[in-house]
Amino acid sequence: MEPHHPMNIYDQITKPTLLLDETIARRNIARMAAKARQSGVRFRPHFKTHQSAEIGHWFREEGVTAVTVSSVDMAAYFAQHGWDDILIAFPANLRQLSDLDQLAAQVRLHLLLESVEAAERLSAGLRHEVAIWLKIDVGYHRTGLDWQNMADITAVAQTVHALPRLRLAGLLTHAGYGYTVGGAAEANAVYEQMVTRMNAVRDGLRVVGLETAVSIGDTPTGSLVDRFDGVDEIRPGNFVFYDTMQVSIGACQPEDVAVACACPIVAKHADRRQIVVYGGAIHLSKERLADADGQVNYGRIALPAAHGWRILPPQNVVKTMSQEHGIIQADETLFQQAQIGDLLLVLPVHSCLTANLLKRYLTLDGRWIEMADIH
Amino acid sequence: MEPHHPMNIYDQITKPTLLLDETIARRNIARMAAKARQSGVRFRPHFKTHQSAEIGHWFREEGVTAVTVSSVDMAAYFAQHGWDDILIAFPANLRQLSDLDQLAAQVRLHLLLESVEAAERLSAGLRHEVAIWLKIDVGYHRTGLDWQNMADITAVAQTVHALPRLRLAGLLTHAGYGYTVGGAAEANAVYEQMVTRMNAVRDGLRVVGLETAVSIGDTPTGSLVDRFDGVDEIRPGNFVFYDTMQVSIGACQPEDVAVACACPIVAKHADRRQIVVYGGAIHLSKERLADADGQVNYGRIALPAAHGWRILPPQNVVKTMSQEHGIIQADETLFQQAQIGDLLLVLPVHSCLTANLLKRYLTLDGRWIEMADIH
Repeated sequence: MEPHHPMNIYDQITKPTLLLDETIARRNIARMAAKARQSGVRFRPHFKTHQSAEIGHWFREEGVTAVTVSSVDMAAYFAQHGWDDILIAFPANLRQLSDLDQLAAQVRLHLLLESVEAAERLSAGLRHEVAIWLKIDVGYHRTGLDWQNMADITAVAQTVHALPRLRLAGLLTHAGYGYTVGGAAEANAVYEQMVTRMNAVRDGLRVVGLETAVSIGDTPTGSLVDRFDGVDEIRPGNFVFYDTMQVSIGACQPEDVAVACACPIVAKHADRRQIVVYGGAIHLSKERLADADGQVNYGRIALPAAHGWRILPPQNVVKTMSQEHGIIQADETLFQQAQIGDLLLVLPVHSCLTANLLKRYLTLDGRWIEMADIH
Repeated sequence: MEPHHPMNIYDQITKPTLLLDETIARRNIARMAAKARQSGVRFRPHFKTHQSAEIGHWFREEGVTAVTVSSVDMAAYFAQHGWDDILIAFPANLRQLSDLDQLAAQVRLHLLLESVEAAERLSAGLRHEVAIWLKIDVGYHRTGLDWQNMADITAVAQTVHALPRLRLAGLLTHAGYGYTVGGAAEANAVYEQMVTRMNAVRDGLRVVGLETAVSIGDTPTGSLVDRFDGVDEIRPGNFVFYDTMQVSIGACQPEDVAVACACPIVAKHADRRQIVVYGGAIHLSKERLADADGQVNYGRIALPAAHGWRILPPQNVVKTMSQEHGIIQADETLFQQAQIGDLLLVLPVHSCLTANLLKRYLTLDGRWIEMADIH
């Protein structure tokens, strides 16, 4: 029997298209799931990266039964697709109380809170029980209760504990400052500090008779620590695809990046060795990455290969972009090889944002995988 | 008869929603259309900003009959909605030849070229006639033939002239470097230089017996010059909504910005006077703007008002964002006034990208306007 000819997938591509290497993504999932199992923690992956019921199944095959999402709409989408234990890792939006209540009637719904006021309004507005996690700020300063502010944390925890329909479940943090770490040693230090701080808060609540679980979640520390000690649950998300930001952090190798945006070449400019592709801000997003010299880029370049893609040396990058154009700075080899009408691949800086823009995936064996269509 | 109560539109908003002030947008359209009429040039507005058939009608009411788009899909959408003179202002994508041919059968289709090779492949791949514009680079260096390189320009023009199914229509440029101008004097200088260079190219082609029209298009110079002298056609697009980038350039006043993203407040942090809203990179885009001190922001803040919104002092900005969170740096007045569950409005940095993400508009009288659903 003839084998498949995977190169053929490139023949059918006419416009910016997000390719997904299922083998890499499944390997990324299996590795994180195994580490969670070995550490004895619950693996509640964040599905905001892929936003796809089908890719959700790949997690289920690794034993995952609980998930994290970032919006009420995304929770509703995964509830529709059979998930019944869903955490919305975003401060509860009081303007969506009726949607939240409807979800709470269907699934075990977990919400985030960080104020007495929001707790009271949530309790008053719901008819079904929800599990509540207090969002703790361990140093990222995006949102959450400061881990050192035990007075406020205790007040919110006691309010939640006392109010009907709210069940105090635990403490949750996102060490987003993990995104500035540079390798395993720093990631382990960040992890250690985060876990120490979270457990200090847990101990503080235990003093007043409240038991809480600890949930953490970010791809850099999740990828770089060997074991998840001192926590009950992990919620990384980006690792399913990774991207060049994670490569630059040291959380993965370029070969671990599971998605690439195929972009048709529309022009070449020999004087500045630039290649113009159809593929811009509305496909890749304007997430940027600065290298050691402060040079900004919007993605790294690969070429179609017999199976998947071949990543080019790091000097080949998306240098600038506008709404639909990407301008590729090419080395001499790439510039000579690239022809108008060919495809280049862009490994995205931030795969979550690129996937959110392109809305579906083409696997290397030519199958389309749909995402939630959420506006 | 009771008047409408426009405040009610805010009551129905539960998640990030793009509000559109139709009065402002129509005023922006009318002003540009009038200037084009008075200058005796064809107004071929770029519809990539709004991507909406309904908003397209507002242009038609101002006498517009020809439009610009940035992709084949967008051309097909507007062709479906009754437009029959469409320019795709993007280098012709040779991987979409059959789509282009199908469009060329339906409408007067205008395409961009900048190489002999692309001209030959386009001619060979089409069965219907298309109008060809040569993309000229007058200094932006994104794409196009360098205006000083008359040898190459002439070669491409003569190739187009000689090939079947291609009709040489004109010379086209996008003075994207208009985006770095700072006010009317600079914009006029940029305009003057652009038009001088385009006419030098036109004169060069006339010498070899080729007549070409000149088409220009960008919102900064389009807004800031008094008359469109020396050109045949203008193609600005962003001006329909404007945004804070255009405010910073001086192309418009804050009061000319016609769209704002309504975002629910989900948390407040008194220690750093920050407000957390539901509204992040997947709603607003990561387009950023640096102020005179180099401080980066992702949008400017307004409050719901009796009709539309009231823009707050410029120190109130989206300071950072992640996928779904926006972190607002607030002055004391805003911080005190803003309550969890309320709405804040964000005037986007780049309205084209924000509209592309949010996919529909809510007018101040509570009507939804749909956009093209293009993946």
